Amino acid sequence: MLELVVLDVNETLSDLEPLRACFTDVGAPAHLLDTWFAGTLRDGFALAAGGASRPFSDVGAAVLTGLLRHVDGLTVPVDEAVGGVLDGIKALDVHADVPDGLRAFSDAGVRVVTLTNGSLAQSEQLLERAGVADLVERRLSVDDAGRWKPHPDAYRYASEQCSVPLERCAMVAVHPWDLHGAAGVGMTTGWIDRRGTPWPAIFEQPSVTGPTLADVAHALIRSSSAIGGHG
Amino acid sequence: MLELVVLDVNETLSDLEPLRACFTDVGAPAHLLDTWFAGTLRDGFALAAGGASRPFSDVGAAVLTGLLRHVDGLTVPVDEAVGGVLDGIKALDVHADVPDGLRAFSDAGVRVVTLTNGSLAQSEQLLERAGVADLVERRLSVDDAGRWKPHPDAYRYASEQCSVPLERCAMVAVHPWDLHGAAGVGMTTGWIDRRGTPWPAIFEQPSVTGPTLADVAHALIRSSSAIGGHG
Repeated sequence: MLELVVLDVNETLSDLEPLRACFTDVGAPAHLLDTWFAGTLRDGFALAAGGASRPFSDVGAAVLTGLLRHVDGLTVPVDEAVGGVLDGIKALDVHADVPDGLRAFSDAGVRVVTLTNGSLAQSEQLLERAGVADLVERRLSVDDAGRWKPHPDAYRYASEQCSVPLERCAMVAVHPWDLHGAAGVGMTTGWIDRRGTPWPAIFEQPSVTGPTLADVAHALIRSSSAIGGHG
Repeated sequence: MLELVVLDVNETLSDLEPLRACFTDVGAPAHLLDTWFAGTLRDGFALAAGGASRPFSDVGAAVLTGLLRHVDGLTVPVDEAVGGVLDGIKALDVHADVPDGLRAFSDAGVRVVTLTNGSLAQSEQLLERAGVADLVERRLSVDDAGRWKPHPDAYRYASEQCSVPLERCAMVAVHPWDLHGAAGVGMTTGWIDRRGTPWPAIFEQPSVTGPTLADVAHALIRSSSAIGGHG
């Protein structure tokens, strides 16, 4: 039975696309957003693989500083450009499909929390700005777990904090690596595939997939009821 | 005392720049190389953080398939484009400074092996093509360690295979995350910084830094002799 849904935040709830303007505004190419975000996760996961952890903003700043150093024609100093992107994250909005998705869980009586590799403050601001903070019981950050997702400890932390066994928790995210990590500790998984991307074969298949949070919510709820009906 | 140098392969010995042509040849932007390489490491590290491992070519193909799917104007099917890039890796050459660097270790009587997150075959072909295979005692791959670097097990594997305690091993790489992982298990570290990039503050500082493999080799040898002189 599904009791708790754990939602990823960056790119799952928040739309990162407006961040491209933070790059072009300082003379850097818009596509650097993709290299930067992948590189930030790469270095955060490297720390996790070695049993360590640093705040997302520290990792993101270090990676971005290295990338911007090699950009010709930057119109502001590197430090200022880095600050601009990190500030841009704080100003992001949720994807249009998020409020309906959150309501679907709420209507079905499923508890909802967030678990981010970023900061608690950023999750808080994002949900407040979208007017959906009351649909999320609690915001959790890996900063308090000591390991970034997809380290197993991060998921166990959420399960323990909410007093719900992993078997009754579902992880919902746009990132296959996040769902693979959650599946590894026994969670159900829901993949939001907004862009029509093939699932990477190196990772364990998600339990359900949908193009919006609401689609994933309905699929998880349906699948849980079906199992509950036999229980 | 320095007894064994463990060299990273991709981007440390090999020059990845020619791979950009594999992207532009099929109608993809050249900068996708950077996002792809960062994303491949991201997903490989995600597996390592969860205690698993998949071959570099599988991870690289999965990530590249996802990226190319969203490229407009690709001139060949996605599978073919993915195959072209993976074949391109097999055809890479070493950086110009590599042969001199390998000779510096050899002249000083320091043993040299490679330890790659990629395949043994690719390391072998790269060194053969450069005519420096005889300067490298052995090629090792994390495929046999069960964990990609920077998981601690990968470095321990190299140390055990060569019967040299980690304290007498130095890891040499262009990637800060690799040196951070090696430092975590007690290895000396040498950073090749060919482009003048600031060291990311989130990772433990390298023991020595230089703009070429030969510079790093001389610095490691000097520093080892200095310590040995007091021993």
